[in-house]
Amino acid sequence: MSLLYQRGKRDIMQKRRIILASRSPRRKKLLEQVGLEFEICESNFDEDSVSLADPIELAKFLALKKAEAVAARYDDAIIIGADSVVIFNDQALGKPKNSAEAKRILSELSGKENKGITGYAIIDTKNKIVVNNHSEAVVKFRDLSDLEIDEYVATGEPLDMAGAYGLMDRGATLMDTVSGNFYSIVGLPINEVYIELRKMGAV
Amino acid sequence: MSLLYQRGKRDIMQKRRIILASRSPRRKKLLEQVGLEFEICESNFDEDSVSLADPIELAKFLALKKAEAVAARYDDAIIIGADSVVIFNDQALGKPKNSAEAKRILSELSGKENKGITGYAIIDTKNKIVVNNHSEAVVKFRDLSDLEIDEYVATGEPLDMAGAYGLMDRGATLMDTVSGNFYSIVGLPINEVYIELRKMGAV
Repeated sequence: MSLLYQRGKRDIMQKRRIILASRSPRRKKLLEQVGLEFEICESNFDEDSVSLADPIELAKFLALKKAEAVAARYDDAIIIGADSVVIFNDQALGKPKNSAEAKRILSELSGKENKGITGYAIIDTKNKIVVNNHSEAVVKFRDLSDLEIDEYVATGEPLDMAGAYGLMDRGATLMDTVSGNFYSIVGLPINEVYIELRKMGAV
Repeated sequence: MSLLYQRGKRDIMQKRRIILASRSPRRKKLLEQVGLEFEICESNFDEDSVSLADPIELAKFLALKKAEAVAARYDDAIIIGADSVVIFNDQALGKPKNSAEAKRILSELSGKENKGITGYAIIDTKNKIVVNNHSEAVVKFRDLSDLEIDEYVATGEPLDMAGAYGLMDRGATLMDTVSGNFYSIVGLPINEVYIELRKMGAV
């Protein structure tokens, strides 16, 4: 099943059907934010079936696989896939398994820098064009108290986030500064995706 | 009249009444994003009555005056005021007067760096505490075509934004990179405000 989303205001001239191959509410919000009209179609691609040492290559590869799985279902559409990861001390952090792990991760990130990476893939199934790239930004966390970490984890939000934080949600309060493409930390570099959509003549 | 806003999920422990002295939909969104419960009360302070050469000092002063105007109406509350400005080539850019000015500003910002500044004031009317500070970030714009600028201005969005762009809205597509406190570009450094609210024992 796919769902159609639409925004108010004067809409941009959109010439192609766009499919977001992700259930992430943040990615949906980012596409809505820039006025795109799109459908959501989950890929069901098994991420655990893939193993790659380099986290950037892995994020790009997973984004591509997710987009490809959905692309097979459409003859004439633009499919967007993405995969996000947080790098800290050369280690890739995905979503925490439970609250205890979320607390441990946030204690480690406190006061330090981590890198938010999003790999993305855009497939034009009609013209057989595939874009597969990544974007990143460094986030500096402020010093967090144990109480703050406990309170943040209790909201349940960290369990749904790579690196146990979400800057488009309550996690905004954890940030000190950011350097790079902000949108790569929140799940989709919408500015880069938008440029590619323009190049493809989709908007 | 004041309006009460509330979020879902498990709410943070909020101990004080919070009033946002601004009608800005982006500031409202940022407070909601971190789970705060608050009312909105416009200040009606006449910004044009103030003239100060330094744009940072002006943004701080206007934020303080807006918060003070509302603080006079509450005995026991925390009032948040803010004022945002964009600096480009040592010039302060407010909201454009019309579409032609918005286009001119965006043509100038294209491919270059500008600085987004937000002055903010937080007043605890019960304990007579006043915080007045500012936050900033540098935004690098990508190269924009005349067509893109025309399309963006046609949405009407730039007319409501200092510097003629909004990164929490469609303007997200204009950005290349950002360096500093991202939230100061979108109207309120919610992370800094949140720390101050904690210090005041409000959350």
